Amino acid sequence: MTIDPVALTQDLIRCPSVTPADAGALGVLQRVLEQMGFTCTRLVFEEAGTDPVDNLYARLGTGSPNFCFAGHTDVVPVGDAAAWTVDPFAAEIINGKLYGRGTSDMKGAIAAFTSAVKSFLDRNGTPDGSISLLITGDEEGPSINGTRKVLDWMQANGEVIDACLVGEPTNPRVMGDMMKIGRRGSVTATLTAYGAQGHVAYPHLADNPLPRLTKALSMLADSPLDEGTPHFQPSTLAITTIDVGNPASNVIPAKGTAKFNIRFNDLHTPKSLEAHILDVLEEVGGTWDLKMAVSGEAFLTPPGALVATVAGAVTAVTGKTPELSTSGGTSDARFIKNFCPVVEFGLVGQTMHKVDEHVDVADIRTLAAIYDRVLADFFGKAAA
Amino acid sequence: MTIDPVALTQDLIRCPSVTPADAGALGVLQRVLEQMGFTCTRLVFEEAGTDPVDNLYARLGTGSPNFCFAGHTDVVPVGDAAAWTVDPFAAEIINGKLYGRGTSDMKGAIAAFTSAVKSFLDRNGTPDGSISLLITGDEEGPSINGTRKVLDWMQANGEVIDACLVGEPTNPRVMGDMMKIGRRGSVTATLTAYGAQGHVAYPHLADNPLPRLTKALSMLADSPLDEGTPHFQPSTLAITTIDVGNPASNVIPAKGTAKFNIRFNDLHTPKSLEAHILDVLEEVGGTWDLKMAVSGEAFLTPPGALVATVAGAVTAVTGKTPELSTSGGTSDARFIKNFCPVVEFGLVGQTMHKVDEHVDVADIRTLAAIYDRVLADFFGKAAA
Ligand SMILES: [Zn+2]
Ligand SMILES: [Zn+2]
Repeated sequence: MTIDPVALTQDLIRCPSVTPADAGALGVLQRVLEQMGFTCTRLVFEEAGTDPVDNLYARLGTGSPNFCFAGHTDVVPVGDAAAWTVDPFAAEIINGKLYGRGTSDMKGAIAAFTSAVKSFLDRNGTPDGSISLLITGDEEGPSINGTRKVLDWMQANGEVIDACLVGEPTNPRVMGDMMKIGRRGSVTATLTAYGAQGHVAYPHLADNPLPRLTKALSMLADSPLDEGTPHFQPSTLAITTIDVGNPASNVIPAKGTAKFNIRFNDLHTPKSLEAHILDVLEEVGGTWDLKMAVSGEAFLTPPGALVATVAGAVTAVTGKTPELSTSGGTSDARFIKNFCPVVEFGLVGQTMHKVDEHVDVADIRTLAAIYDRVLADFFGKAAA
Repeated sequence: MTIDPVALTQDLIRCPSVTPADAGALGVLQRVLEQMGFTCTRLVFEEAGTDPVDNLYARLGTGSPNFCFAGHTDVVPVGDAAAWTVDPFAAEIINGKLYGRGTSDMKGAIAAFTSAVKSFLDRNGTPDGSISLLITGDEEGPSINGTRKVLDWMQANGEVIDACLVGEPTNPRVMGDMMKIGRRGSVTATLTAYGAQGHVAYPHLADNPLPRLTKALSMLADSPLDEGTPHFQPSTLAITTIDVGNPASNVIPAKGTAKFNIRFNDLHTPKSLEAHILDVLEEVGGTWDLKMAVSGEAFLTPPGALVATVAGAVTAVTGKTPELSTSGGTSDARFIKNFCPVVEFGLVGQTMHKVDEHVDVADIRTLAAIYDRVLADFFGKAAA
């Protein structure tokens, strides 16, 4: 008996699992996986100052290699609820499209994982190795009590994965457009320029930090970090905010703070970027405080067996050759890459995080067929 | 009978006339002036969105020329009350210094005006002309319902003044240091750069206004406006705040706003400065909004009869040649200069607007002597 990935997606959407709420989503998945013979472990993590988060690690079989599907059941908030034309958690199908928060990002892919495993097992029996699912409830949130801690728990408990496919929505327009084989790194810098307060009428008695701050930011924004690499776009630097909060138009302030985010390719590390920023600050002069918060290093899964398997499955099912991309925002692949090769392929991302998020019902079935074919190729079994 | 300028300063300080409160200060002054024969007119002005403010115009005589002493009885707030070593409204004299909010700025000068007129009249009788006092209660506040409106009322009522001496504290360290013969202009610009919001991971889909804003501000702060003139320091531009208020470190904001204040000399007008700013914005490119709030134009009372009279009186009493300065913040002289020549000379300003504001008791008597000598010279009578 097959599992209908569309019906399972609907069941998952009807759980309003806005981070950090689980709202029953992992339970829906766990019941289906247990019926298929998976051993399921629920892992609730928390630490001071964070919300507790529920996670699920499910494994079928005990042998190697262990092929892992990774993803998240949590979803972003609905945003402007009044702007939705449907109930964001009703999972309605209208004209062949399934609507709901999390359809694209990424409950549809989780349902497709599950359906694909069932089809593969029905056709081939238990493989020589293992199939696992690593599903977190903290990808859209701070990502502190999610995949990172599940991976630590796995390592501590001898749970090895050998290849991983993350089901994030990777296709800009249609199924088969793009898969991701790495991601740029991301670092957020908080930069404060210090001076001495004073009256605007007596600027020589003050030391205005804002000309230095604007000069340094302008220099940082204007100087390209690199030209890109064969697998990466050029690194980018985006000033996101500048805040002084001085209400007195006749007072020179004592300090000003800016934040900027750098998305960087594998030509850089957070350390090398910090050195670059410090060079600019030294050129401008003055007293500074620089704090760097690293969200992820740049990484690349170089074209090889896993990339070929997934790309081949995409082509076999869709007839398209997916672009091997490293663009876009961060994902939990940034944690998984420390343990095994990891790539990402999922649904069409056009409406992710937006009002009226939806996917084509047919795309969910296509995705299940692609995942099934990945398993067949990985384990050397017959495709459907 | 003479009037003791120190005792009158104390009476005025004991009225806690923090803008817009009068707290009886104008009444104290009016009683003394009426006893001397002045005709006093109280002028309460208000307009929508402002506090009503009490002002006093007092005139002795009806003939020309009319010599006017101008000043304000309102004071700035005490600030950190706990940091004062005395009650800011008790007007205590300790070791020859009179303490209290408004001693320096500028109740001591108002008392000195009054005492000087009395001495002058006692010695010379009523002059061939008039002596007047223009005293406002809104100089430290928004300056909307104060001197500006009194001058409009005077013009409408045929009240002409021929020369004016403003009693603002002009001496940096000791009596005789400095008088002011003009002021720089002041304009506050509010500059907003517009772009298009987006995610930092996809900067090509957004249009970040902050690199343009920082570049324009850096260019404006770095390019000197002029080299100064014989009577003016170089004009200055001070960025006072930059505010974006974007809490999301992964979002490129749609706009950013900065404010800067320009103190400019008589080489510029608000119009010419606006043209300069627009040139920079055009060079940087992008969409902008620029608002200019003019607090005052630059003005100069060129060395002539009034400047010579006041400088001569300062030298005669103190033995020092005062610097003819145009430095410092704005004062109500910026309104008066449209009606007649105006200069400023008062007490030592070292503690004005600060905790434990105070002046030397002897300085108040010195100032009264200087003002007396100004009147004598102006009306061609014997000095004391
Ligand atoms: Zn996602
Ligand atoms: Zn003043």
